[in-house]
Amino acid sequence: MKKSIFYHAGCPVCVSAEHDILEIASPNQIEIVHLGETKNRIEEAEKAGVQSVPALVTPNGNVLHINFGAHLTDVKN
Amino acid sequence: MKKSIFYHAGCPVCVSAEHDILEIASPNQIEIVHLGETKNRIEEAEKAGVQSVPALVTPNGNVLHINFGAHLTDVKN
Repeated sequence: MKKSIFYHAGCPVCVSAEHDILEIASPNQIEIVHLGETKNRIEEAEKAGVQSVPALVTPNGNVLHINFGAHLTDVKN
Repeated sequence: MKKSIFYHAGCPVCVSAEHDILEIASPNQIEIVHLGETKNRIEEAEKAGVQSVPALVTPNGNVLHINFGAHLTDVKN
């Protein structure tokens, strides 16, 4: 089964949302990507439709923007 | 185990998010509440910290605002 991908940037809102998402979903169904530490994956996130973090990209390609931590443009800097 | 509560108002964004959430979590872990049809639960949602729908309130009381469908004030009308 294809995994969901949870993109975050280490901000408090992100960490809190990550914790909550892992509470309701199986951890082995979700790949966690820290865009602040792996900036080479920002482009992939943008192509998936991610505009801000934290965001969850589901296996069918939908993007769930959860609360609001930071704009993707802020993560690039 | 205490359930999460997914509040929505039947809007397209809500329905899409509901579908996605139920893909990653077990349906029996989540109670679905349509605030447009059960307006007597709007106050309960507000007290939980819900500001807009769709939103997911986790068992530990955190509120995840997912994308943006409508402000709770719009649901009241």
